[in-house]
Amino acid sequence: MVKRKLETCFSPALYEAEQHTGSIVVIIDILRASSAICTAFENGAVSIIPVAEVKEAKEYKERGYLVAAERDGYVLDFADFGNSPFNFTPERVEGKSIVYSTTNGTGIIKMAASAGEIVIGSFLNISALLEWIIKQHKDVVLFCAGWKNRFNLEDSVCAGAMAERLLNSGNYETICDSTLAAVDLWRLAKGDLHGYIDKAAQRSRLRSKGLDDCISFCLTSDFTRKIPVIKDGYLVNYIL
Amino acid sequence: MVKRKLETCFSPALYEAEQHTGSIVVIIDILRASSAICTAFENGAVSIIPVAEVKEAKEYKERGYLVAAERDGYVLDFADFGNSPFNFTPERVEGKSIVYSTTNGTGIIKMAASAGEIVIGSFLNISALLEWIIKQHKDVVLFCAGWKNRFNLEDSVCAGAMAERLLNSGNYETICDSTLAAVDLWRLAKGDLHGYIDKAAQRSRLRSKGLDDCISFCLTSDFTRKIPVIKDGYLVNYIL
Repeated sequence: MVKRKLETCFSPALYEAEQHTGSIVVIIDILRASSAICTAFENGAVSIIPVAEVKEAKEYKERGYLVAAERDGYVLDFADFGNSPFNFTPERVEGKSIVYSTTNGTGIIKMAASAGEIVIGSFLNISALLEWIIKQHKDVVLFCAGWKNRFNLEDSVCAGAMAERLLNSGNYETICDSTLAAVDLWRLAKGDLHGYIDKAAQRSRLRSKGLDDCISFCLTSDFTRKIPVIKDGYLVNYIL
Repeated sequence: MVKRKLETCFSPALYEAEQHTGSIVVIIDILRASSAICTAFENGAVSIIPVAEVKEAKEYKERGYLVAAERDGYVLDFADFGNSPFNFTPERVEGKSIVYSTTNGTGIIKMAASAGEIVIGSFLNISALLEWIIKQHKDVVLFCAGWKNRFNLEDSVCAGAMAERLLNSGNYETICDSTLAAVDLWRLAKGDLHGYIDKAAQRSRLRSKGLDDCISFCLTSDFTRKIPVIKDGYLVNYIL
């Protein structure tokens, strides 16, 4: 069988949309958007409407939607809650459609709109996601949200964890230096993932705002088998 | 003493010029532009005129200048020679001003024009360069040329080698995830640098064109004490 191509993109500023029109693009923003989205589906959310602009989120709120929205780690004043996965409890989200806007994550979903398939990846759904990806026989891009267009350590390490497994499956090949680096960083990190991520800048940013309570959770593998995927502009759970 | 800030930029697409107006920016394009420039000065070149556009390089040639110019590893037809450090022999370059245009390296010199100081870094001049940098007491950006706006392994590993020494000096601090990742990649690589770089995409690109003869040389530390620095748009050797 012909091996499919695996690439990693470390930042939205490095994303080349025209190269990936037939690919599966995995959006990785583990602190905290992609972890929160996986948690919402595990806890019974029906769909998530990603919106990039604050204005748009506010309009949805005025129309009666449940709105999760933050910028730089702070909940926007009109929103129901913010970006911590702990906010997406079954009591709040079961059976609901949620409007969701964050600093990085939702913006890059829009950037990837021309891809063959857009899915949300995190440690929380890593095994289910990779099993599904391997069955699709498509090229794959691991798209790290980063932080304000910069490289970040936690998303890159998560991309490395995914890349290592995809390459080990024998179904993928890569000539992408970012993928090789991500795998190496993951191998350094995996023995003590929490300790490794502790040095990351985003971890410090969250800690300085008292928002770091969810980090251990976000680094947990296989909390859920849900695979959030974009259909007609909405995130829904892929039915396996 | 107040510690100075150390940052790493993995690609021209990630460079934030307005953040670095007072900083020393180190241009790193080890396969092959920054290695070739260091070699040229060691072998007696007086100055190097970096030009980003092919058209401009051609105009200089018509005016009688010695011109080194390549795109994607190939020497341009009007140029005297290309981008291998082995081209910059004492016989050719001693006492000369050389016009120089490459795929990545010279373009990013222009991008960094608003920095406090622009210097050329490679393994070939690493110790002299770092000793000089530490004496300046300025913020430092390690600016990797990458490959066509993408992350590459060899420049990132060289940035990591520089970052490790700057941080170890006690004069610098970093909250930049790219710097932390670069240092980690360097620590993985340094035991067998040639073996590690062997997996990089640029190495494969050079090999496929028969241009990989200079790689071992480009990975050699301290071939020279020259520090190429931009003065009035030209590269000259910094007089220590």
